[in-house]
Amino acid sequence: MTPVRADAVDHYDARTDVLVVGFGCAGAAAAYEAASAGADVLVLERAGGPGGSSALSGGELYLGGGTSVQHACGFEDSADDMFGYLEAALGPHADAEKLRLYCDGSAEHFQWFVDRGLTFEPTLWDAPTWMPSTRDGLMWLGENAWPYNEIARPAPRGHRCATPGFGGRLVMEKLVAAAREAGAGVQTDTLATALIVDDTGRVVGVTARRHGQELTFRARRGVVLTTGGFADNEEMLAHHAPHLIGHGKVSDGLDDGSGIRMAAAIGAATRRLGTVELALTALPAMVTRGMLVNAHGQRFINEDVYPGLFSVAAVLTQPAPYWVIIDEEGYESIPERERWGVVPRFVTETLGELEAELGMPEGALESTVGTYNTYAERGQDPYFHKDPRWLRPLKGPFAAVDPRAGFHQGGRPSAGAGTGAAGFTLGGLHTTVDGAVLDVSGAVVPGLFAAGRAASGIHGEGYVSGTSLGDGTFFGRRAGTAAAGAF
Amino acid sequence: MTPVRADAVDHYDARTDVLVVGFGCAGAAAAYEAASAGADVLVLERAGGPGGSSALSGGELYLGGGTSVQHACGFEDSADDMFGYLEAALGPHADAEKLRLYCDGSAEHFQWFVDRGLTFEPTLWDAPTWMPSTRDGLMWLGENAWPYNEIARPAPRGHRCATPGFGGRLVMEKLVAAAREAGAGVQTDTLATALIVDDTGRVVGVTARRHGQELTFRARRGVVLTTGGFADNEEMLAHHAPHLIGHGKVSDGLDDGSGIRMAAAIGAATRRLGTVELALTALPAMVTRGMLVNAHGQRFINEDVYPGLFSVAAVLTQPAPYWVIIDEEGYESIPERERWGVVPRFVTETLGELEAELGMPEGALESTVGTYNTYAERGQDPYFHKDPRWLRPLKGPFAAVDPRAGFHQGGRPSAGAGTGAAGFTLGGLHTTVDGAVLDVSGAVVPGLFAAGRAASGIHGEGYVSGTSLGDGTFFGRRAGTAAAGAF
Repeated sequence: MTPVRADAVDHYDARTDVLVVGFGCAGAAAAYEAASAGADVLVLERAGGPGGSSALSGGELYLGGGTSVQHACGFEDSADDMFGYLEAALGPHADAEKLRLYCDGSAEHFQWFVDRGLTFEPTLWDAPTWMPSTRDGLMWLGENAWPYNEIARPAPRGHRCATPGFGGRLVMEKLVAAAREAGAGVQTDTLATALIVDDTGRVVGVTARRHGQELTFRARRGVVLTTGGFADNEEMLAHHAPHLIGHGKVSDGLDDGSGIRMAAAIGAATRRLGTVELALTALPAMVTRGMLVNAHGQRFINEDVYPGLFSVAAVLTQPAPYWVIIDEEGYESIPERERWGVVPRFVTETLGELEAELGMPEGALESTVGTYNTYAERGQDPYFHKDPRWLRPLKGPFAAVDPRAGFHQGGRPSAGAGTGAAGFTLGGLHTTVDGAVLDVSGAVVPGLFAAGRAASGIHGEGYVSGTSLGDGTFFGRRAGTAAAGAF
Repeated sequence: MTPVRADAVDHYDARTDVLVVGFGCAGAAAAYEAASAGADVLVLERAGGPGGSSALSGGELYLGGGTSVQHACGFEDSADDMFGYLEAALGPHADAEKLRLYCDGSAEHFQWFVDRGLTFEPTLWDAPTWMPSTRDGLMWLGENAWPYNEIARPAPRGHRCATPGFGGRLVMEKLVAAAREAGAGVQTDTLATALIVDDTGRVVGVTARRHGQELTFRARRGVVLTTGGFADNEEMLAHHAPHLIGHGKVSDGLDDGSGIRMAAAIGAATRRLGTVELALTALPAMVTRGMLVNAHGQRFINEDVYPGLFSVAAVLTQPAPYWVIIDEEGYESIPERERWGVVPRFVTETLGELEAELGMPEGALESTVGTYNTYAERGQDPYFHKDPRWLRPLKGPFAAVDPRAGFHQGGRPSAGAGTGAAGFTLGGLHTTVDGAVLDVSGAVVPGLFAAGRAASGIHGEGYVSGTSLGDGTFFGRRAGTAAAGAF
């Protein structure tokens, strides 16, 4: 990671205008825009092919402000409502400047995806889930849950390209093709190892390694780091984001923070390295129909929020283990294909038996469910404000579902099996809205840009699905344009 | 903060072997040891005199392993028991290597303070408090609370020099005098502004400013950064530790992270910048006799833990506002001088009235207190395991105390008034056990050392009083010794 002085480099293996390091969604977006602006562009990718963690993701794109899919599904939306929701849901302490641009540009950014060849069905999946099993083009991501439904006019903004299940691979196919067609070159199996810096402090290239061979790349206009986060680097997690230690990782296994470290080695500033997103392997369809409780049998959130929010609330604030408590009527009302292979760990006739099975003090679940039922009879949840749609007194037999068992969907292992949670990092390099990397004094590092999870994006402490592909591509585009000198 | 190249420095205003930047507890300890090892030592202090935030602190020193004060008070202790407690209480993810050295060296480190002229009364303050009002030399800091009392043999380890109330000023008087007597020079009103680095990457001095004048200082052997944390730098808090934003700051107002930033500007690694300690302005004497609840009226911890632990648990994991619920009998049993001017915000005959005053759902406090009382009758707290000493069914009239009102002790404002919490940062530069600063590749930055809250010390996510003065002086001593080249 130690930076290399330009005067110590005696030859370059390749020269280009804009060097993009990492070919996930941010790298593809940056490469596309830089090439479209007329720059020579070369993308270095450490893996054998493009895609990165983006290609393994669900493929949701958090977009709004009045897209054609939203209109077709009967929703009005505005950039202001989108901003209102995200500022709250990605907060506290979301980056308001980046977020404002992101929301104002969202409708255009949706069209950019359409123009790159992605199609979206004009239909809504209208139930709580981590991921619809259908090709529906739109889904809710917490916008209609309290307190967000009082902060901004709710509209679903989870856009999904027309493919069932995980859509990340299709998104990346289109973006990689777009970058190539725009003229970007690619060298795979090529791991960038350090930045090359001239004596004015300008970044002018990178060193790299391919099959044991050391290479040097010259970037005449700029280097764009789109290397991803650091969920796969245990040492960085220990230093910066210990909450992820021991949990599953949502990544392609190569998110080792190399771009963040290369830049920090020359004094680049980082931001919020401790912030993580976590997903509990608990089914939204089950927790909304029942409840999510902590080790003491206490509820702690309205279960109909964006599932990442109940997940983070559990793992970061509540004593483990967590349990999904549901009754037979609720469980049976979930279509089998929506159960993702999840079965109860304990089933009992009474709550007294269930709390004993779970090792909770006598009366723990009886008290929690008793209170819940009393208010549910009236269609109320005065503690957490779950939508009345999901409020119904729970009656025996009762079941306790253990998120540690994970999901068991067709073939795809769930990352959270074991601890019940899996996640990734949200912190990264401190950048301007145009992707320029800042140093610890707040000055721009000349020639250096970053986007995607190598950078700190629109997020504060919170997260919503689709905002990583979303801000990775949105600010990746801006970084590519800026690196090409086209701003 | 931008580093200065040594070849651009045409003269030095002063030359020394070891340059210590900051004259708080870590700086004083480093200066003393470096001077005692025979090095020329110069301390730069930005304020008009020495002391820093250390001098404003309570002065607790977390020490054990069998000190004379522990023996006199009838307690056996060992380095292993001390390690067991701190690894759990400062965790998860405390730095085991630093912590092991700290515990193994603790009895010697206690003697070092005695040899510097501090005296300790051989008496124990045996009640929960933020700070005894007496001159007692020893206090519990959570060692006897569950689950820690099951992890290691409990012994009180909060050592307090013989002065009533805040002891930080006395500690610093002795340490500053010791450093001066050992031969360290001091220049006050001198703010270090950047590191001077030679063309091999070695730190060889600092630039500084005094009354508008630019100065340069040459350090032949090493620079030791003991500049404190960054609680007073709102921009750094926004980038790294947003949990402190808006809360009171426990500092001298000058903890702006300048040392951390100077070092990061040359590629030094940081660690756990997001970790903070927070103190709720809630009286341990009251919460142990009653209970601490969140906005929903739920308990969430055994109230007899180290008060910083219930504070952090509240602010970082529970919905605000927090309330201390106590009954008349409990309140009246606290001697008036131990109430620190704290009076109830609401007093009612029944819990139903109290929960209405607090805006909680009907039944919220009745349920929590009902469960508490049922088990307290049997001397049990199966949820959180508060010591039976503090378990007693609560009976009306009831009171709710609001931590946001702060404390009102004689003359000294309580930092937490307003939000109910005040704190400081725990993250900082990544150092070896000898205080050498590491770069982001894990290599030592030649010539650069750090200790105290400018560095990441023994802490993981947790904190205990006395571990900042404790590890600041312990690793400050090691850094001073190492910088003098005496290791």
